[in-house]
Amino acid sequence: MTLDRLSINQMTVRQLSLPELAGACRRLGIGSVGLWREPVQAYGVEATAKLVRDAGLTVTSLCRGGFLTATDPRRRARALADNRAAIDEAATLGTDTLVLVAGGLPPDSRDLAAARERVADALEVLAPRAGERGVRLAIEPLHPMYAADRCVVSTLTQALGLAERFPASQVGVVVDTYHIWWDDSAPAAVARAGERGRIHAFQLADWTTPLPEGVLNGRGQLGDGAVDLRGWRSRVDAAGFTGAIEVELFNEGLWARDGREVLEETAGRYVEHVL
Amino acid sequence: MTLDRLSINQMTVRQLSLPELAGACRRLGIGSVGLWREPVQAYGVEATAKLVRDAGLTVTSLCRGGFLTATDPRRRARALADNRAAIDEAATLGTDTLVLVAGGLPPDSRDLAAARERVADALEVLAPRAGERGVRLAIEPLHPMYAADRCVVSTLTQALGLAERFPASQVGVVVDTYHIWWDDSAPAAVARAGERGRIHAFQLADWTTPLPEGVLNGRGQLGDGAVDLRGWRSRVDAAGFTGAIEVELFNEGLWARDGREVLEETAGRYVEHVL
Repeated sequence: MTLDRLSINQMTVRQLSLPELAGACRRLGIGSVGLWREPVQAYGVEATAKLVRDAGLTVTSLCRGGFLTATDPRRRARALADNRAAIDEAATLGTDTLVLVAGGLPPDSRDLAAARERVADALEVLAPRAGERGVRLAIEPLHPMYAADRCVVSTLTQALGLAERFPASQVGVVVDTYHIWWDDSAPAAVARAGERGRIHAFQLADWTTPLPEGVLNGRGQLGDGAVDLRGWRSRVDAAGFTGAIEVELFNEGLWARDGREVLEETAGRYVEHVL
Repeated sequence: MTLDRLSINQMTVRQLSLPELAGACRRLGIGSVGLWREPVQAYGVEATAKLVRDAGLTVTSLCRGGFLTATDPRRRARALADNRAAIDEAATLGTDTLVLVAGGLPPDSRDLAAARERVADALEVLAPRAGERGVRLAIEPLHPMYAADRCVVSTLTQALGLAERFPASQVGVVVDTYHIWWDDSAPAAVARAGERGRIHAFQLADWTTPLPEGVLNGRGQLGDGAVDLRGWRSRVDAAGFTGAIEVELFNEGLWARDGREVLEETAGRYVEHVL
């Protein structure tokens, strides 16, 4: 009952194989997972779909498409083709949500606004295709420390502004506490996104310091950091969101431990700090 | 002529002693410096004032006061006393600007909004005192990656909202490209701050990746990163700002080199990427 809405993003326990993850989730009473394309492709998309179906698991999201900021026409065409493939993979896995990370600045460019517009242009192409396949694109704003090299969409307000150019059934946003916890304009954006049915995914991680070199793999276990996780859960609930609450941690320390133990700890932290 | 508005923040070439910095600036035709309290105290505040006066240098800012978020009454009293001392030091050095960094979350707190209000409460005490000494407090928003452990004021809009509770002659903001370059709401805040005479300091650094562990000392040399420095200079100029343009780099690579060479390189980069 208490774990009803909990979904474990595969990256949190990337040391587990897909069958191990499915088994461990079933034993703990966790009914949902978020998956990543690379390990799914390695295991086989159809095989993964069968595995999760047989285990009775719901796939709450697939990470990730995006990286749509290239100016070079060939790179741009490759990115669109890759996103079409990602939409198909999401449909095959039976998830209704594909997470998109915008991409960073192209080499030698310093124009964030133009890069964001190229993301919008790409969505013009991808959104209808996603709609046809029953997949919603979820734009994930990443923390501003990734603006140069990973994601030019840095706030929930920006992500929502992009999403609102399209039907909510095609494009929405990801609310991830790790990326938005510092932002005093994010609560209003959460409310607006919820009201309009555009919260397509809700992800949790805590903010711990010091940040590691490269700032990629320092997302804290729930309760270890500065984020008022329960407060954000309440805001997202108040916005009308009733979907899965997905825990997505990138953390070298957690990856070095036994995956099943980390999974159990994460479920406990969820009950203690989120519910 | 071209270096008229350039000011070198002492931290950029912290390997130089104060007399070395003064001599090197004079040789290059740089007429202004921003100073830091710790090296100034080590050399002596009065002695530093005489040194810069004799060298014909203008002190454009003193870094830094602030760290006003403590809940513990004794810590809070100590912080206020330290800020009063910083105001006096600024007055002695003949600079009209004391840079304030708000401070991070206290231990075990997750309440950013309350921490920001404690900064406002402290400004109630400090602003009139600064006004009496002819010193303006300049609230510096730091990049959101410092929100937990260093500065709960993360955007120029937030900083301006705090400053606007006080007369512009007492409290304003720092516009630092390193901290705000990613923020699409910052240009409007720059315009508003300029219109109301609240841009008390303008600082430059470039954004380079990957970020180092702890993310403190990775500020890029002008031209090495993702920031449209000339674009920001134009915005700040258009907002009516005519003051010094201060280069403040925290960079282990630059600190490991000959300070005079770094200073000369920085002046060259300023001409190439900022003017």
